[in-house]
Amino acid sequence: MNCSADLVLLLGNATAADYICNKFTDADSAINTTYILFSAYFVFIMQCGFAMLCTGAVQKYNAIRTMFANVVNLAVGTISYYMFGFAFAFGQPSNKFIGKHFFALKDIPSESTGFDYSNFLYHWAFAIVAVGITPGSIAERTHIFAYVICSFFLTGFVYPVLSHWYWSPDGWANPSRAPGVSLFFNSGVIDFSGSGVVHMVGGIAGFWGALIEGPRIIRRFGDRRGKPRGHNKTLLVLGTLMLWFGWYGFNPGSFLIINKTYGASGSFYGQWSAIGRTVVTTTLSASFSGVTMLVAKKISTGAWRLADVCNGVLGGLAAITSGCSVVEPWAAIICGIISSLVLNGLNMLSEIFEFDDPLEAAQLHGGCGAWGILFTSLFAKKEFVTEIFGERQGGRPHGPFMGGGGKLFAAHIVAILVNIGWVSVTMAPLFLLLKYLDLLRVSRQDEIEEVDV
Amino acid sequence: MNCSADLVLLLGNATAADYICNKFTDADSAINTTYILFSAYFVFIMQCGFAMLCTGAVQKYNAIRTMFANVVNLAVGTISYYMFGFAFAFGQPSNKFIGKHFFALKDIPSESTGFDYSNFLYHWAFAIVAVGITPGSIAERTHIFAYVICSFFLTGFVYPVLSHWYWSPDGWANPSRAPGVSLFFNSGVIDFSGSGVVHMVGGIAGFWGALIEGPRIIRRFGDRRGKPRGHNKTLLVLGTLMLWFGWYGFNPGSFLIINKTYGASGSFYGQWSAIGRTVVTTTLSASFSGVTMLVAKKISTGAWRLADVCNGVLGGLAAITSGCSVVEPWAAIICGIISSLVLNGLNMLSEIFEFDDPLEAAQLHGGCGAWGILFTSLFAKKEFVTEIFGERQGGRPHGPFMGGGGKLFAAHIVAILVNIGWVSVTMAPLFLLLKYLDLLRVSRQDEIEEVDV
Amino acid sequence: MNCSADLVLLLGNATAADYICNKFTDADSAINTTYILFSAYFVFIMQCGFAMLCTGAVQKYNAIRTMFANVVNLAVGTISYYMFGFAFAFGQPSNKFIGKHFFALKDIPSESTGFDYSNFLYHWAFAIVAVGITPGSIAERTHIFAYVICSFFLTGFVYPVLSHWYWSPDGWANPSRAPGVSLFFNSGVIDFSGSGVVHMVGGIAGFWGALIEGPRIIRRFGDRRGKPRGHNKTLLVLGTLMLWFGWYGFNPGSFLIINKTYGASGSFYGQWSAIGRTVVTTTLSASFSGVTMLVAKKISTGAWRLADVCNGVLGGLAAITSGCSVVEPWAAIICGIISSLVLNGLNMLSEIFEFDDPLEAAQLHGGCGAWGILFTSLFAKKEFVTEIFGERQGGRPHGPFMGGGGKLFAAHIVAILVNIGWVSVTMAPLFLLLKYLDLLRVSRQDEIEEVDV
Repeated sequence: MNCSADLVLLLGNATAADYICNKFTDADSAINTTYILFSAYFVFIMQCGFAMLCTGAVQKYNAIRTMFANVVNLAVGTISYYMFGFAFAFGQPSNKFIGKHFFALKDIPSESTGFDYSNFLYHWAFAIVAVGITPGSIAERTHIFAYVICSFFLTGFVYPVLSHWYWSPDGWANPSRAPGVSLFFNSGVIDFSGSGVVHMVGGIAGFWGALIEGPRIIRRFGDRRGKPRGHNKTLLVLGTLMLWFGWYGFNPGSFLIINKTYGASGSFYGQWSAIGRTVVTTTLSASFSGVTMLVAKKISTGAWRLADVCNGVLGGLAAITSGCSVVEPWAAIICGIISSLVLNGLNMLSEIFEFDDPLEAAQLHGGCGAWGILFTSLFAKKEFVTEIFGERQGGRPHGPFMGGGGKLFAAHIVAILVNIGWVSVTMAPLFLLLKYLDLLRVSRQDEIEEVDV
Repeated sequence: MNCSADLVLLLGNATAADYICNKFTDADSAINTTYILFSAYFVFIMQCGFAMLCTGAVQKYNAIRTMFANVVNLAVGTISYYMFGFAFAFGQPSNKFIGKHFFALKDIPSESTGFDYSNFLYHWAFAIVAVGITPGSIAERTHIFAYVICSFFLTGFVYPVLSHWYWSPDGWANPSRAPGVSLFFNSGVIDFSGSGVVHMVGGIAGFWGALIEGPRIIRRFGDRRGKPRGHNKTLLVLGTLMLWFGWYGFNPGSFLIINKTYGASGSFYGQWSAIGRTVVTTTLSASFSGVTMLVAKKISTGAWRLADVCNGVLGGLAAITSGCSVVEPWAAIICGIISSLVLNGLNMLSEIFEFDDPLEAAQLHGGCGAWGILFTSLFAKKEFVTEIFGERQGGRPHGPFMGGGGKLFAAHIVAILVNIGWVSVTMAPLFLLLKYLDLLRVSRQDEIEEVDV
Repeated sequence: MNCSADLVLLLGNATAADYICNKFTDADSAINTTYILFSAYFVFIMQCGFAMLCTGAVQKYNAIRTMFANVVNLAVGTISYYMFGFAFAFGQPSNKFIGKHFFALKDIPSESTGFDYSNFLYHWAFAIVAVGITPGSIAERTHIFAYVICSFFLTGFVYPVLSHWYWSPDGWANPSRAPGVSLFFNSGVIDFSGSGVVHMVGGIAGFWGALIEGPRIIRRFGDRRGKPRGHNKTLLVLGTLMLWFGWYGFNPGSFLIINKTYGASGSFYGQWSAIGRTVVTTTLSASFSGVTMLVAKKISTGAWRLADVCNGVLGGLAAITSGCSVVEPWAAIICGIISSLVLNGLNMLSEIFEFDDPLEAAQLHGGCGAWGILFTSLFAKKEFVTEIFGERQGGRPHGPFMGGGGKLFAAHIVAILVNIGWVSVTMAPLFLLLKYLDLLRVSRQDEIEEVDV
């Protein structure tokens, strides 16, 4: 475990042992920082993916407004997460519920807690992904001012608090709390890269926004012209592939460090392998979800439809995000196949209830995200859970389908309800307040006219 | 060579030597996995490049069908390579001709053979590039079902078998087979990143597809309106630059590991330098090919044409892919200049024979890929070949222009014929079968109408 | 400092010490090369960003000409920098003013000077960014031949000489010249990633080009139809976000190596932290500049305008590029806020003087770049300057607002004037010569007609 302590026993020379071990520490810092920074950059490019996807999925005259929302979200979200968000999420020392330090990066880098700038950057990139989901749900009718407020509140408070619960060393649901501290259901919640923390947050926020705003004037439902389609399929594909690309920073990057052994030092298998496996599960879920959607739609409607395949891919990605590191590749296939069915089902429901989400973002990120949390609780493998989150007295609950009992499942059911509850009690009132103040929706005239000309 | 064995002699303390050496092994795993995974991600983004390039190069009403093909290819190819392709390519132990293990990643990670998830991922990204080439040749007239079948067969069987021959430790043409095992022409074939394995495969498959389908209704030839041009040059440039960007994962990434010394440990020069040189050759070939095409076209037609420069760049990239690691930068300039002439010549031939390939993919990837194989056999430098593939009793054949005799040239001529032969005997019958079953080409009506509306 | 010398004292065994230290050297080469190569690739993708941004910002019928310029610039600039530019910039041994070796990569890799292929690649990517700025200023009216000449001259001579002055070990203004060699103003100029070297060069070159060519026929000013707007906002956003993404190679990559300690080996804080801080300052300046522009424009014109926010973001990025590594995150906020005001002010001036720069590239890269140089001289922090550029007898001048006296400020004022002077005396005559030879501007007819059809 501790290089210097080990090596001094072997070399019988404390200074030499320290010297050598310190050089290893330097190399580790360089390797791990390289790994996490480039992962963060990949997560950042998802902003470009969201912007292209959203723009492609709206009507032509709303393209500029939509991109405006994406760019403003990004800039405002960055400011908010820098000032408040990171502190509420990871500020240490903290309590179970909220962080209290690191406002505006005060005391960072923090040797005592191990938080360096790179940690902030990685989590910042995540925060702006969460807030990049919501604009899709409320596209084509929302006032730019409302985007600014939502973005500030979501990245500065709603998302950080939830991420504290699951990911901060002190969070009540974190599966890797200090030895001796009891875990939630003796397990904690395994939301590795944030099917819940990121995708459900963005999706549920979008759900309330879309619900409270109501359908677009060019509504998807109830008129003879059928649903309005996005104006540019090329942007849809560009956005989807950029998001997929960025997901390779999102899921494997969540390991944060790559140079970590699981067994003896010098082993072939280590965290680097687990990271590779995470890329595999991510890729398989995306592909199988996309193909399932293709086939399902062909069977049910007789047509091949490009947008469906793209959304299938994204649904598979959102779902695998929770369990990507702790399931076998074959399980990721199941994750992906069911993702597309979940998305399909929720889309049918949204048609029945005339719920108008131009990008299906609530269904996709909210619905598939929730499925991902559930999936993880069913298929998490004991070996992987232990390797990643560490040994615990009495063992680690894992998926019931993998012989792991019901505790993880119970913890995850609670997590889904908690996620829904927290985002609902924070975001729904905000949208209602904005509506009450008449700041939420653009005028009827503005909604169907092109802006920025 | 072996850290523990060396260091125990120096330290006189086996446990200390092991301890230190194991820490180096861990760091190596982390560094090399970081290197190869990010390279794989870069190769993945080439999918986005292909999608944009193809879309920009077709008629507007065919844009959606074209992107559909790209996305479906990607998802289906992933499934196929995961299930069969990787096993046929690298499954070990194997014979000279085909791999027999690792179906659906069984037994991966495999300590005995050294294959980890990251190896699968890197090769998967390559497989879907190979299959990303073909849609360009058969664009604007092919049935989506045919894409699915082709993609499944190409990534699951045709490409993997060929890659086994050249890249698997057991492949008959691999230049780095175990010491004592004789090499093909005492040399093996140096197709470092796959001008043949990837680009010729995609290009020749496209050639047969385009030939068997015949020209588009809006044909390029023989009518007064001249050739149909792509509908969106912006996408063409976006696609070209994304492909170029991705090529920086493709060529230098093929080293697979970056921490490898060529001489004594601690040297300034090592595999990291060879990797840098590979990026340089890749860049120079692309640039010189693009500029040559610009000048050649200006001289021959009097016009500057953007699409020509883009294709010139891509031709230079496809050609240098084989020899990128074993030639001097000045040789890469020759590679690039001739690439654009090869492409130009083949395009003239295709006009004469009324061969209709909307993206010039057969000419570009097939033709420039073949030129790349030939180029490597002429200009490979002894020093570089030995560093990368290891010393052999009797020395390593290298390029005749570099004083290396004719064996490498002979081996590469055979390789070109083998590549053409293998892809032809597998893919031509498939396209003929699809045609016979009337599953290959869309109806006349569908070909000139927009889909997905 | 020197591993072998240190460790032999501790181990009392020179061979063992060498063995272990050499292994560390190998790992360092692998880590640092991975870091710098991937950073270079990120800088490369900025070409795609420029192409999309420029294309989106011009009139539809000029889109192809504009992209043509970007692609040709890239290819020609690569050839020129390979042949001459790198030699003039970094060729060693050299004098204070210009390099004299490494033409066409002769003698690279060079163990004695420490230059490997990766160094060339990183600086090449920078050179083509500098030359990627200028096409924006002279868009929509310049002959393709003029682009070729400008690109060749700028990447082959103008940019390299300036970069030699500030960045080459021998450059007269380099802050990290050898101990004992006196520094300019006892300080040298801190243009870490090139607000001056890259952005002012591109911007001032563009200024002279736009001035000498005069406004477009569809001028921005003086007619009733108002300013011509770009034809495609989607491309504007795509370009902006790709540039932002690429900037994460540009600014933090300029450290060149990531495994470097600042204090004792084994410390938590080291160059990896400084790199993270650089990413933070870059991000904050971009975001605050974008939001400031949004608010300022809303207040002054009553409208939200997407293009303004995008340019605000880019202005904040260009400005922070100089000081990104040596200022505190809070100072980066000031940098960003003032950037957008500088850009806004220069845009107003350009309207008054009827200066027509379709992309505001002269104002943005020239103006915000100059502000960045000034900003750095005011806010550079002693601790950071010393860590990055090394201790000097008598201490390091730093920002007057950080208690550092006036020397750095004086040096930077000179630097701004030198940058303006050098680019003006080289590029203005070139543009005048091209104009005299009637090679600069396309014909009136060509200017308003679509090319490449």
